[in-house]
Amino acid sequence: MNVISSKDNEIVKSVKKLKEKKYRDLENAYIVEGIKMVKEAIMEKASIRQIIICDDCEKSDSIPKELMYEIAKYECTYVTSKIFKYISEVQTPQGVLAVVEKNNDVNNIESAINYNEDIIVALDDIQDPGNLGTILRTVDSVGLTQILVSKGTADCYNPKVVRSSMGAIYRVKVIECEDLLEMLKEVKKNKFKVLVTSLGESKNIYEMKYNKKVLVIGNEANGVEERIMKIADEKIKIPMLGRTESLNAAVATGIVLYEYVRQKLEK
Amino acid sequence: MNVISSKDNEIVKSVKKLKEKKYRDLENAYIVEGIKMVKEAIMEKASIRQIIICDDCEKSDSIPKELMYEIAKYECTYVTSKIFKYISEVQTPQGVLAVVEKNNDVNNIESAINYNEDIIVALDDIQDPGNLGTILRTVDSVGLTQILVSKGTADCYNPKVVRSSMGAIYRVKVIECEDLLEMLKEVKKNKFKVLVTSLGESKNIYEMKYNKKVLVIGNEANGVEERIMKIADEKIKIPMLGRTESLNAAVATGIVLYEYVRQKLEK
Repeated sequence: MNVISSKDNEIVKSVKKLKEKKYRDLENAYIVEGIKMVKEAIMEKASIRQIIICDDCEKSDSIPKELMYEIAKYECTYVTSKIFKYISEVQTPQGVLAVVEKNNDVNNIESAINYNEDIIVALDDIQDPGNLGTILRTVDSVGLTQILVSKGTADCYNPKVVRSSMGAIYRVKVIECEDLLEMLKEVKKNKFKVLVTSLGESKNIYEMKYNKKVLVIGNEANGVEERIMKIADEKIKIPMLGRTESLNAAVATGIVLYEYVRQKLEK
Repeated sequence: MNVISSKDNEIVKSVKKLKEKKYRDLENAYIVEGIKMVKEAIMEKASIRQIIICDDCEKSDSIPKELMYEIAKYECTYVTSKIFKYISEVQTPQGVLAVVEKNNDVNNIESAINYNEDIIVALDDIQDPGNLGTILRTVDSVGLTQILVSKGTADCYNPKVVRSSMGAIYRVKVIECEDLLEMLKEVKKNKFKVLVTSLGESKNIYEMKYNKKVLVIGNEANGVEERIMKIADEKIKIPMLGRTESLNAAVATGIVLYEYVRQKLEK
């Protein structure tokens, strides 16, 4: 077995580059790391291009045999612990990572519209990777399989987002919109209504019917941008009973989506 | 005006120490940083022990005059930008921070019980400071004014928690429990029932009446500990319609609390 020990190796260089968004975009691929994530990528039938295994990492022995058997079906590369640590994002790597093809699309209006669910979630410049991953996780938890993201939203394939998505990244198709406003205008022409949450509205989330709505979640600091507010068909507020002015973006998304779930289960 | 420029100054040393939990516990105080947080501490009438102002930080000029007028009513200390950066947690400090007294209590059963709300939130070993701050913010947003935390929960007065609480830290009283299980047993004797969310239960969150319940939120990885599960009066699940197995702890808290809000508004 050939174990790579040089940083100049082409495979090592190409994987290392995927830490940068520019190369993730160019290669249309990203890195997932650790036993749980790689196992889930295999189970979810994500398009795995390559698996990198550490030959002598402290924790490499903890990779279960059954998983190693599954891993062997893919293109595998063995590297030394020095090289693995060089590629890895984490302090104490588990000795396995995979290069996975993105499940995404750019500006695909057809895909956005021909969607068999009552709710589409659209993100308008969500900045925090932890929030973004948590939103993906929440979107997946209510059975939605796609999300629209504005150009100013953090990269869904950044390692922190991937980690906090807890596997949702494999299941939720990310439709990147060059111009979210234009995409929403198109979506409005096709049965869906644009729904925004905003402080100070009179109608609350419990009074809304969640049928064929695009729920736009705004930036953490500035909310939904003005031009999108203007084309919104429905505006609702999450009632605030205390003195806190607003909620965390991921929490707000969860609250609205689970009101949608409540109404769905009631039917 | 005397501007402190030495790290050996007693005030500087005492503030610097508050970065460690040990000293926050000893002094029963913590640091809040930045214009917004200090302003809110003043507005919320938090017990401010001291305000530190940077004499020559780049951003010190951006402190509004009205705020400086308010700040001057407290014990103020001016320091050089070198010293301010030495104390500060942030990369580009805004040039103002305050030492604030904790709004907390330890093992106070009376306070926990004599509580005029239908819901008490109890945290069983929440580890992530971002989650913890977000939970405080959410608890405040539904008008609750106290929270129970287990010994294994992250410190509510850690700077990251304080920041992500968005001011809720001034308003929500933190009751630290040496032994959360024992506290819950006491609370059970006094009208409140213990409610846990758990995967695989049959009853869902929409079928529960939220009157006099202690909602226990479990650790991010392990959920609610076994001994607490055993004394729970009610177990409910958040329905999962997709393939994600569980939700982020802060999102889950928000979803349950806003079902409580929905029922409350319906009355």
